[in-house]
Amino acid sequence: MKLWDKGYSVNKLIEDFTVGKDRELDLYLAKYDVLGSMAHATMLQSIGLLEKDELDKLLAELKVIFQLAEQGSFVIEDGIEDVHSQVETMLTRKLGDVGKKIHSGRSRNDQVLLDLKLFARNEIREIVELGSKLFDVLIAQSEKYKDFLMPGYTHLQVAMPSSFGLWFSAYAESLADDYLLMQAAYRIVNQNPLGSAAGYGSSFPLNRQMTTELLGFEQMNYNVIYAQMGRGKMEKSVAFALSSVAATLSKLAYDVCLFMSQNFGFVSLPDELTTGSSIMPHKKNPDVFELMRSHCNKLQAMPTQITMMVNNLPSGYFRDLQIVKEVFLPAFQDLKNCLEIAIFALSEITVKAGLLDDDRYKYVYSVEDVNRLVMQGVPFRDAYKQVGMSIQSGNYQPDRRIEHTHAGSLGNLCLPEISAKMASVIACFDFRRTDEALSKLLK
Amino acid sequence: MKLWDKGYSVNKLIEDFTVGKDRELDLYLAKYDVLGSMAHATMLQSIGLLEKDELDKLLAELKVIFQLAEQGSFVIEDGIEDVHSQVETMLTRKLGDVGKKIHSGRSRNDQVLLDLKLFARNEIREIVELGSKLFDVLIAQSEKYKDFLMPGYTHLQVAMPSSFGLWFSAYAESLADDYLLMQAAYRIVNQNPLGSAAGYGSSFPLNRQMTTELLGFEQMNYNVIYAQMGRGKMEKSVAFALSSVAATLSKLAYDVCLFMSQNFGFVSLPDELTTGSSIMPHKKNPDVFELMRSHCNKLQAMPTQITMMVNNLPSGYFRDLQIVKEVFLPAFQDLKNCLEIAIFALSEITVKAGLLDDDRYKYVYSVEDVNRLVMQGVPFRDAYKQVGMSIQSGNYQPDRRIEHTHAGSLGNLCLPEISAKMASVIACFDFRRTDEALSKLLK
Amino acid sequence: MKLWDKGYSVNKLIEDFTVGKDRELDLYLAKYDVLGSMAHATMLQSIGLLEKDELDKLLAELKVIFQLAEQGSFVIEDGIEDVHSQVETMLTRKLGDVGKKIHSGRSRNDQVLLDLKLFARNEIREIVELGSKLFDVLIAQSEKYKDFLMPGYTHLQVAMPSSFGLWFSAYAESLADDYLLMQAAYRIVNQNPLGSAAGYGSSFPLNRQMTTELLGFEQMNYNVIYAQMGRGKMEKSVAFALSSVAATLSKLAYDVCLFMSQNFGFVSLPDELTTGSSIMPHKKNPDVFELMRSHCNKLQAMPTQITMMVNNLPSGYFRDLQIVKEVFLPAFQDLKNCLEIAIFALSEITVKAGLLDDDRYKYVYSVEDVNRLVMQGVPFRDAYKQVGMSIQSGNYQPDRRIEHTHAGSLGNLCLPEISAKMASVIACFDFRRTDEALSKLLK
Amino acid sequence: MKLWDKGYSVNKLIEDFTVGKDRELDLYLAKYDVLGSMAHATMLQSIGLLEKDELDKLLAELKVIFQLAEQGSFVIEDGIEDVHSQVETMLTRKLGDVGKKIHSGRSRNDQVLLDLKLFARNEIREIVELGSKLFDVLIAQSEKYKDFLMPGYTHLQVAMPSSFGLWFSAYAESLADDYLLMQAAYRIVNQNPLGSAAGYGSSFPLNRQMTTELLGFEQMNYNVIYAQMGRGKMEKSVAFALSSVAATLSKLAYDVCLFMSQNFGFVSLPDELTTGSSIMPHKKNPDVFELMRSHCNKLQAMPTQITMMVNNLPSGYFRDLQIVKEVFLPAFQDLKNCLEIAIFALSEITVKAGLLDDDRYKYVYSVEDVNRLVMQGVPFRDAYKQVGMSIQSGNYQPDRRIEHTHAGSLGNLCLPEISAKMASVIACFDFRRTDEALSKLLK
Repeated sequence: MKLWDKGYSVNKLIEDFTVGKDRELDLYLAKYDVLGSMAHATMLQSIGLLEKDELDKLLAELKVIFQLAEQGSFVIEDGIEDVHSQVETMLTRKLGDVGKKIHSGRSRNDQVLLDLKLFARNEIREIVELGSKLFDVLIAQSEKYKDFLMPGYTHLQVAMPSSFGLWFSAYAESLADDYLLMQAAYRIVNQNPLGSAAGYGSSFPLNRQMTTELLGFEQMNYNVIYAQMGRGKMEKSVAFALSSVAATLSKLAYDVCLFMSQNFGFVSLPDELTTGSSIMPHKKNPDVFELMRSHCNKLQAMPTQITMMVNNLPSGYFRDLQIVKEVFLPAFQDLKNCLEIAIFALSEITVKAGLLDDDRYKYVYSVEDVNRLVMQGVPFRDAYKQVGMSIQSGNYQPDRRIEHTHAGSLGNLCLPEISAKMASVIACFDFRRTDEALSKLLK
Repeated sequence: MKLWDKGYSVNKLIEDFTVGKDRELDLYLAKYDVLGSMAHATMLQSIGLLEKDELDKLLAELKVIFQLAEQGSFVIEDGIEDVHSQVETMLTRKLGDVGKKIHSGRSRNDQVLLDLKLFARNEIREIVELGSKLFDVLIAQSEKYKDFLMPGYTHLQVAMPSSFGLWFSAYAESLADDYLLMQAAYRIVNQNPLGSAAGYGSSFPLNRQMTTELLGFEQMNYNVIYAQMGRGKMEKSVAFALSSVAATLSKLAYDVCLFMSQNFGFVSLPDELTTGSSIMPHKKNPDVFELMRSHCNKLQAMPTQITMMVNNLPSGYFRDLQIVKEVFLPAFQDLKNCLEIAIFALSEITVKAGLLDDDRYKYVYSVEDVNRLVMQGVPFRDAYKQVGMSIQSGNYQPDRRIEHTHAGSLGNLCLPEISAKMASVIACFDFRRTDEALSKLLK
Repeated sequence: MKLWDKGYSVNKLIEDFTVGKDRELDLYLAKYDVLGSMAHATMLQSIGLLEKDELDKLLAELKVIFQLAEQGSFVIEDGIEDVHSQVETMLTRKLGDVGKKIHSGRSRNDQVLLDLKLFARNEIREIVELGSKLFDVLIAQSEKYKDFLMPGYTHLQVAMPSSFGLWFSAYAESLADDYLLMQAAYRIVNQNPLGSAAGYGSSFPLNRQMTTELLGFEQMNYNVIYAQMGRGKMEKSVAFALSSVAATLSKLAYDVCLFMSQNFGFVSLPDELTTGSSIMPHKKNPDVFELMRSHCNKLQAMPTQITMMVNNLPSGYFRDLQIVKEVFLPAFQDLKNCLEIAIFALSEITVKAGLLDDDRYKYVYSVEDVNRLVMQGVPFRDAYKQVGMSIQSGNYQPDRRIEHTHAGSLGNLCLPEISAKMASVIACFDFRRTDEALSKLLK
Repeated sequence: MKLWDKGYSVNKLIEDFTVGKDRELDLYLAKYDVLGSMAHATMLQSIGLLEKDELDKLLAELKVIFQLAEQGSFVIEDGIEDVHSQVETMLTRKLGDVGKKIHSGRSRNDQVLLDLKLFARNEIREIVELGSKLFDVLIAQSEKYKDFLMPGYTHLQVAMPSSFGLWFSAYAESLADDYLLMQAAYRIVNQNPLGSAAGYGSSFPLNRQMTTELLGFEQMNYNVIYAQMGRGKMEKSVAFALSSVAATLSKLAYDVCLFMSQNFGFVSLPDELTTGSSIMPHKKNPDVFELMRSHCNKLQAMPTQITMMVNNLPSGYFRDLQIVKEVFLPAFQDLKNCLEIAIFALSEITVKAGLLDDDRYKYVYSVEDVNRLVMQGVPFRDAYKQVGMSIQSGNYQPDRRIEHTHAGSLGNLCLPEISAKMASVIACFDFRRTDEALSKLLK
């Protein structure tokens, strides 16, 4: 059954090519397609295009389908090309012609776009929650290891004193900024495209404000051409935000892989988080972090993938957009997996104490020594000379006291301030509005 | 003169390679380097690392250099490798040793990062202002041409009635969403990295809150490792936002180029905005829009460029970051040029009236006719059949009335709502805080 | 069963994360893993690490597994993490300890790299064959429609006379150049990495020249570190070539979509190659070409994806490379689908005759008219003036004769020369060597 | 002076925007524009469109301009928009109307494309020569340090014995494969587009075979539409090849930066190749290699940049292509700089002897010990157990003999074979044909 079927037989090759991976990918969207249909039907009844009893039947049946989707037992049958056709088929099997009425004032263009947005909105929420948990782990580890010093590097050259407290919370603060982009993406997503139909609206007197509220959107994409233009753009905006989180995880993973090398030996992981070698018993390979890095690097190519597909298309719908789903829909799970593994692995990581006692790191203190002399009143030039000469003569013995006191330094990590920064970002995601709307719709 | 010079002569090949384009590119940063130095010096005095009279001399001299930079007469001299060295050289020439004191508690790492952020903050502001003007032009044209109908396309196939009102304001609303990303980028930029020094802070008791306020930042990058990590990340976040605006302009330009083809003939431009052919007098080539499109498409590759350079580097400073400047610094001007041209060209564009009177577009009314019958009570199935048959028999005469009334449709453009959406986005850029701080610093 | 299992239980979360999509993706590699094992075993026997009867048993059993893979009945069992482990498990089940001996002098690193290269080599061959068929279709259509004129555009402005003969063969010649890159990629692929083990070779006296010949490789990756470095690089080189073919198809598809718009109406497709609209009977949507375009545009992002994952990794194996398989393995089928659809659709496409009789295209002849006068001895300046004035006065009546005679022009398409160009590129792929080697190995 | 000028004044804003960076960038092309004009004029005379004495005057004057360009004193004057107009202006100033005749049968479209190809052809040649020099340095260092052992890493974990001989020549062999792609790009470049005019050929009886030979091209782009389509595609193909060389340099640079870290300490550079710190005298920062890495990573984004600009444009010329020059023209110099620095720096690098004597690397020998037992007849399982137990008990004393003998291993580097591989790739670049043709043209 194809909605546009005009009776001739479509070549199998063509059919496989045009359906592509939709049957598989559209399962991501099933729940959201049902929710969208519930809101649309409710609105249609309000403007007289459905009778009250028709609406009641439709809503009851849609709830049944929603349950199927929730339980993972919704399937797209052979010969049915996508989720929209499957839901419509199920409705008409049960309810006859009433099932078809639901398509009034709607096109598959705005329907799939709505599904994608409802899906993305929910996935972003999960990524916010996981990111928030990872943030907490990082802050906790920072607090726990705040006095564990390590060498700080520039150019991978041993440079100045650092600490694991500083290192863990750096990545926490990085997440706070990533979620600023996520919030922008969320706000772009959280606008209702329903009613834009094929991209030029409808001559039915649709109440778009009503569906906006029913589905818990912040606002609507007003202009119907723009609503359609949002397809591809919305995905790209989300891809920017996902790739920002991914970049933070990738860098973190890179550090861990480096620090686990025997040439550093700064951190270690429990056995179940490493893989060994069939022959080299000393190896503890950080495969988990390498895979995390690689997944996250792949995610960072997603904006390019989407842009390649949607760029240089004029306004108006094109079938090209179908392939964006192949990239967009599975990406969230990839990032969620990485976040979950990061939460687990960073909770389990152990760090080495006393790293700076090793003499090969002793020069990290040279700047401290110079500064200390300056604070005691020695002119900088003389202080620098004095320390420099003791180093060159081989007599340099560092004063290992560290007195970093300013905000954000290793002696003053500002963890409460960083936590407040994250909290203020998270607070802007207004998930409650959505929750309330959807539970009302489904009640 | 190199700050790190240890006395040996550096091979010319190496010097050219390491200095690269810094002398040229750093001119973008001169003003901001001076502002950063003024704030840093003021703070140093407050913690006892500069005397009051030293500060006064420094501030006076820095203001002179700022004026030079404002007037475009700041130059980086031969043999001086970057803006930071040039400013320091100028200060020491005038003030002797005092000029060097300004480097206490600061590294070129946080200094250049600060400059980049102050620069980007100002550039974003200009891009917000230009985007706002373009938005106004689009809304005005939408209002002006709200009754000028045109065919709406899907798959580039003639589909449904649209209008120039709808078309212009679609791009206006698109800008509103772009500036959501811009705002996120702005907030990532607008955090103070000063005091992070080489990425591990300083043992001097720096007052980072003070420089945060002096420079009008919203807040600080607390963690010093994260502050350094922001280099590359900050630029990438901005690149996301720039490329979002660029994508809107690129699509708009694509439409215009298509609509100017003789096969469409929907819009035309005054002569000075087209180029002709040496031999074909009928040609009016939309070079301006093609160039806009290409510049904007180039900008959309910027996130990839930056990611390539900074990805898979562990934490800590690397010289790799210098090359990011080659990509980042000139990008703003490219986008500003495109915005200015767009403002001008879209103000001048004229659109063709009566397009839908042409019979080749008459089928755009078929959906309207079906819907009208449905609203009159004819079952959809019958209405569809009736219209379909009249089309197939060749007797179809469209009813050219159009009654799109719902929000965002061609009969109800919601321009005030779209304007309010843009206004609420723009309002979140708190440029006044910055203005007040900087004018206080410079007074 | 994991080859590196040391007895402790591995957390399920970790296992799922590390195995990832390998069980599914490795099915692409099964046949090639078997071939590689056959060659490796044969070589091990030649250097005394296997007995002759052990080799015979192994080869016999490996052929059985090869048949399973050929028939599509090879599966990776639950609890087995990849194709290499599955094959080894099957061998040891049947042959006991002999099955394990095959791993001597080999690591999973060179094993998977070998599999990937044998797979890619075969896929490139199929893409060469399909590309060659498409080339033939394009040449045939060019010949068939060589006298069907059409307007040629610059800036999408009607410019000069063109023809479908010219248009079809342009894409044929484009393919010839694409396959130059494909040939380079093939030569990079067609080098034997076996024997490089984990990237540092082996202390066994492996005969790498022997496996090179047994597997029909052109030569070997000599340096064992470089052989390992080829992972990622090999895939990227192939991705360049695939994306070059994809770019040709994408551009072709774009033209078709444009030419099918009612505003052009240059070409049409049979019904089974278009989709209609549920309401607009005049629409013939070129979904097939839009999907081809989008798939091909997605493929053009593949070099970026791979580069993101492998860039800025130092030399030596990293687990990151596993995720490259997710991108690399399915890409060939995507391109093959597009090539097959293109072969079919371009065979079926029909083009409109007499396009240039339409007066809106009459100015395409103006350059011809000027040139004709010039050839008759009129100075260019006067000829240009004469034609220009007749156009401006509205009296221009084109002389519709077209006398393009030079090589590659519409009157002299050079199809034999273009065919010879393609043939010379194709001839450089030495598929016979491979065929002979593999059939000898399997006999 | 604009060739297409129709007499109206063009707004300054528009002019700046449309001319863009052409005046500056076109200087790269001046020599090649002159060469192309010489060939074109010679051909025009052969078909009767120029008199013999006109040709002589033109060639004489063009040689003068060529000399100017060679000496770097060719300039594009204010008010002249590009190199083509400048050359034509210079000719007409000197020769009057004859100077204009040269434009017959040519368009700026094929003219600039020709210039770009001649330029790229020459630049590729320089990159081949520099790459060849770097190859020689790497082979020489490999030979010199073939007995200097180092630990080989997988997952950045100490794994097996490696050597500097192996490490240097790995990158040499990598270059050999890179130049396979370069050769494909060269062959795509080295085809004559002249005569394709604006993309639809000319009604003049141009002798394209003649200009093909005069300019030393391997063959021509026959189809005139394809010739034009080569713009953008040619640049992208070259970008693939440049980015392949860049990836090799980037990885090499990454290794060097890592190996220079105090945590490795494997290699060191003379002082002039490192930068120090204003305060930390122990630092030798590998800025040169970091910059090389970053430049090369930026180059790896070039295919994306170009694809963004040219993708999803239908066939036919668009002004978008102008901006591709901004990316394409300067890229060669960036890569040449990196190659030159690499040649210099890798000649000067020194490596540390006796690395594997350090006990922290002793486990690299464990595989060797197991293999040795196997070769002595001990079953693998028992050999593995024996070595494994001695490691776990802490009694493991490695046998430090290394007997890697197979092709490409550290005991058998196959440098002659790798050199032969590179030589066979280089031999395919037929630079002599070009040399002979161009010196004949200029004599």
